[in-house]
Amino acid sequence: MQDGPISLLEGLATTRAIRRFRPDPIPDEDLASILWHASRAPSGSNRQPFRFLVLRDGPRARQARALLGEAFRAEWQAKRTADGYDRGSGVAPNTRKARMAAAMQQFVDRFEETPVVVLACHEPYRALTPFDGANVYPACQNLLLAARALGYGGVMTMWHVLVADRLREVLAIPADVFLAATIALGRPQGSHGPVRRRPLGEVVYEDGWGESARWAVDPPGTAFAGGPRRSG
Amino acid sequence: MQDGPISLLEGLATTRAIRRFRPDPIPDEDLASILWHASRAPSGSNRQPFRFLVLRDGPRARQARALLGEAFRAEWQAKRTADGYDRGSGVAPNTRKARMAAAMQQFVDRFEETPVVVLACHEPYRALTPFDGANVYPACQNLLLAARALGYGGVMTMWHVLVADRLREVLAIPADVFLAATIALGRPQGSHGPVRRRPLGEVVYEDGWGESARWAVDPPGTAFAGGPRRSG
Repeated sequence: MQDGPISLLEGLATTRAIRRFRPDPIPDEDLASILWHASRAPSGSNRQPFRFLVLRDGPRARQARALLGEAFRAEWQAKRTADGYDRGSGVAPNTRKARMAAAMQQFVDRFEETPVVVLACHEPYRALTPFDGANVYPACQNLLLAARALGYGGVMTMWHVLVADRLREVLAIPADVFLAATIALGRPQGSHGPVRRRPLGEVVYEDGWGESARWAVDPPGTAFAGGPRRSG
Repeated sequence: MQDGPISLLEGLATTRAIRRFRPDPIPDEDLASILWHASRAPSGSNRQPFRFLVLRDGPRARQARALLGEAFRAEWQAKRTADGYDRGSGVAPNTRKARMAAAMQQFVDRFEETPVVVLACHEPYRALTPFDGANVYPACQNLLLAARALGYGGVMTMWHVLVADRLREVLAIPADVFLAATIALGRPQGSHGPVRRRPLGEVVYEDGWGESARWAVDPPGTAFAGGPRRSG
């Protein structure tokens, strides 16, 4: 346990995707605080088109969670095959890839037991453009960071796309609302910790595209991971 | 001055858009730290397609900043007229609207003096969809929060769209890269503080679209602001 609350910088550095949850529920006051901090995020002209549809144990919530679980299991099965999680380092014991596969399998197998599921939505005020992500994804990131601050964890996924139409029916979501993300939340089974990213020099340029910035160096102890190879 | 570093929750609650900057530069090590924390954000399959193009005083940076200043002044002039900043509460002394107008005017008038400008970009690995915002806007939010933690502030805008093609030429940005946001950064002239948002009950639903969640209540002292009225 640490003394006192986690600092802003430490929170940014150590909030990682959490996919395995303890069964503990999230009390209403914690959930309200998580969503309140989410809604402090900026949006264009402070319009705040973000909407958070919480799915717990209501009758429609259960139906929606079952649809999501079905979609997530199908998506993970497809990714598991496509990305080679069933061969090589994906099946070797104790590799990062094998641990990731196990966490993903548990995530989708037990999705219906996830303590809280939040559908992050964007209520449109004009035709949707890729810029509209700026009206909802900063709030999603604030949501995940606030969860971390209160001892929870979560992960954001777009695997709901497979069942988006059926979700709209069950939850009465208007056709023009953008279902931006599904966020699973709960008390982590594992722990948070430093995340792995590309070396900073690969993502920071100065004065021109692809021009490396010599000052853009990672602090000592940074753990690295490149993204998956580009397909096609 | 506060004792010790700002907490994660306080940072989320009090990071607001900063548009008026002191002339102080941002030292390289602070800028590296801000961008490092930005790049801890999640992205789909940890692909990390976010790229940050920093514009300070390099020859192409100056050209790009001049283009941006030109675009921002034109955009603000149009918004100033369209949104009635030149009449009613927009010209009454000491209204929020008048203070906002003054801050925006200073922001665009002195844009070229902004200590650091960051173009947040998304390097595509497939055709761009609105979901791809989830690969870059969480990183933008982390960037703004990290700046806050280190005593800086900033604002995200999309007003670069007017000059996007000319920016690509000057900065050699490939045609398929998405210019997701322009972020201005510097030491604030004013101060951070609680932001104003809609009442939480307006943005949180449970079990169905539009169904209010009784537990979704704002903490005491919350300041409110609705978004602008929908146009048309």
